[in-house]
Amino acid sequence: MPEFAPRISEMEKSAFVLRKLFNAMNDPETISFGGGAPAHEGLPVETVQELCNELMTRSGRGVEMLQYGAPMGVKDLREAVANKLLKPKGIDASADNIMIVNGGLETMNLMCQLYINPGDVIIVESPTFVHCVEGFEMFQAKCVAAECDDYGIVIEDVEKKIKEYHPKMVYVIPTFQNPTGKTLPEERRKALAELGSKYDVIILEDDPYQELRYSGDKLKPIKYYDRTGHTVYANSFSKIFSPGSRLGFVYAAPEIIDKLFDIKVATNSHTSNLPQVLCAEFFNRGYFDAHLEKVCAIHKERRDVMMACMEKYMPEGTKWVFPDGGLFTWVELPGDIDTTELLLEAEKFKVAYVAGEGFYTDPGKGKNCMRLSFGNVSPEKIEIGMERLGNLIRSKM
Amino acid sequence: MPEFAPRISEMEKSAFVLRKLFNAMNDPETISFGGGAPAHEGLPVETVQELCNELMTRSGRGVEMLQYGAPMGVKDLREAVANKLLKPKGIDASADNIMIVNGGLETMNLMCQLYINPGDVIIVESPTFVHCVEGFEMFQAKCVAAECDDYGIVIEDVEKKIKEYHPKMVYVIPTFQNPTGKTLPEERRKALAELGSKYDVIILEDDPYQELRYSGDKLKPIKYYDRTGHTVYANSFSKIFSPGSRLGFVYAAPEIIDKLFDIKVATNSHTSNLPQVLCAEFFNRGYFDAHLEKVCAIHKERRDVMMACMEKYMPEGTKWVFPDGGLFTWVELPGDIDTTELLLEAEKFKVAYVAGEGFYTDPGKGKNCMRLSFGNVSPEKIEIGMERLGNLIRSKM
Repeated sequence: MPEFAPRISEMEKSAFVLRKLFNAMNDPETISFGGGAPAHEGLPVETVQELCNELMTRSGRGVEMLQYGAPMGVKDLREAVANKLLKPKGIDASADNIMIVNGGLETMNLMCQLYINPGDVIIVESPTFVHCVEGFEMFQAKCVAAECDDYGIVIEDVEKKIKEYHPKMVYVIPTFQNPTGKTLPEERRKALAELGSKYDVIILEDDPYQELRYSGDKLKPIKYYDRTGHTVYANSFSKIFSPGSRLGFVYAAPEIIDKLFDIKVATNSHTSNLPQVLCAEFFNRGYFDAHLEKVCAIHKERRDVMMACMEKYMPEGTKWVFPDGGLFTWVELPGDIDTTELLLEAEKFKVAYVAGEGFYTDPGKGKNCMRLSFGNVSPEKIEIGMERLGNLIRSKM
Repeated sequence: MPEFAPRISEMEKSAFVLRKLFNAMNDPETISFGGGAPAHEGLPVETVQELCNELMTRSGRGVEMLQYGAPMGVKDLREAVANKLLKPKGIDASADNIMIVNGGLETMNLMCQLYINPGDVIIVESPTFVHCVEGFEMFQAKCVAAECDDYGIVIEDVEKKIKEYHPKMVYVIPTFQNPTGKTLPEERRKALAELGSKYDVIILEDDPYQELRYSGDKLKPIKYYDRTGHTVYANSFSKIFSPGSRLGFVYAAPEIIDKLFDIKVATNSHTSNLPQVLCAEFFNRGYFDAHLEKVCAIHKERRDVMMACMEKYMPEGTKWVFPDGGLFTWVELPGDIDTTELLLEAEKFKVAYVAGEGFYTDPGKGKNCMRLSFGNVSPEKIEIGMERLGNLIRSKM
């Protein structure tokens, strides 16, 4: 058989981590804090049924939902993004500069097509979202990790590494970060936008969790502080409407959006119309606010239960992040416990998590860390699962 | 702003053709034989409404439709592909070797990620599907056109060019080809599969139209004749279920599918679950056969009307293809009429088509050709539009 392209071997390590992650989700007896799904109880099943019933007619939007659509996406969904999602954050965007994509991740793929040559540097957080790193590696980018502290990426280190590596992009998840749950403070957001402008570097802001806030004050996106078009804002409907619909959007300067249009056409023509129209009507008919309130209430309870369980079940010396929103917390175990090795035993204890080292681009880091997601586990099961996890960890001490 | 990757300038010419194509579709008074949409009258609007109504409940498949899904796609849709689409063609496929993708085009994108390095050669038909060429150019592939005659790609020329250019892939649309409507005969199909095996070249078979047959005998796909796994079979649900759903599938050897899995995960996680589950139930509940019969009847009438109009309205010396199925015919005008220049006048005559030269990878070819689609134009409008087109052409003679 013909040889695969070199990019395939470069993505092997992250692909391995992700394959394991998908497999771990299958055992029904295991309580899994792996994955990154939101609460299935919060999915708008009844609303979508009602919308589909009303709209899927020939006089309604049925033909539009099933026929070919526009590469930019359904117009009233792009307008809903501008008016309902960006305007409240102080961003005055035109729907012309918003493109609908196949889930949040696709923006990273399109942006790599636009900018990345083999060997180009992308600065990432340490740790960062392994799924995106796999995508970057597929483009043979070199991911360089910038230092992170308790508040997220450290601006001085980003600037130092921009000077040293001349990156094409800085990829950052500023709010309730994946995997750590940390949130970048206002002054660092502003500083990142300014670094992009000063050094002519794209700041790729991935912000899928930011509507899911359970405590603390709302913050403006990095894009809000962008004066030159260097920040590109990627977001997803996965956590506020439905992950399985695979809907996301990108908001960027016109000269970038124009090219993303061509790339989108060449990649897969356009995003599925059916979920786009349903999601547009979900916003236009005013379902979003009440739905978000419900979804936040469900996840806040789970966050609180998990935080209480940390105190109760984790051995002394364990550190964890208190996330003000989103789906994740990040745990650092005491001593020299290797969480990748521990996973082999976790099966016996019927509990799952994602081992920390997969989220680091530098080898050897995060070996005593784990990502826990409380999103799609009921409070009762969080209690049981965390006790199992505590017992598992203690069994190794 | 940072420089775009070199691939962006390489796709510029095809991107320009495609942008014009999307714009041309917007004027409601124009009768457009451009585009490539199937009849909107044939879209299964009522069936999808009924399915959504029944399935979109918490006890039904509502949560599955809205929650994250599997990168390979929904299992019973993959099984429907194996049993309802591939088995009747003599192909005994396991669902494990079938992946669901975002529309037929995405397979070409994933296959390029897997195999194509800048400068690699892909052999294509002459003319071929411009949309795919744009995708290939995005990967900086060099498209080399193989000669085509009245029956499609000429095997001797493919073999000659394989020896000369050592391509990674041969990309071919064997049935009711886009843009010409031609169908490759059995012996050439077999020969192509054998060339793939003999020279260790991927035969990328793109077969989205083959269920839409209105006359002539059914043919086996190239994949049927493949003994070594070198042929990869790409297909789409766009013409048999719904284009706007963006559903397609790829069937390939396990070692290829395994890698496509990783690439799919890195690109956009998975295909939208909502249309996948609806499409699976569309097959599983037995709607497919009657639906296909209806869709074929609609398109057959349009094909027949367009063919009659060719005789009636086209000036002497015009040549065209009689397509046994699909959505397209290919017209070669007499004399030295340039169809790209003619498009400027076409606006005045309120008729649209796609100029031929955009479908050729060799410059200067196809200048007197045009692609006409009868798919989404009613028989009455085909009559009016073809008269306008005839008048337009005559005005230049």
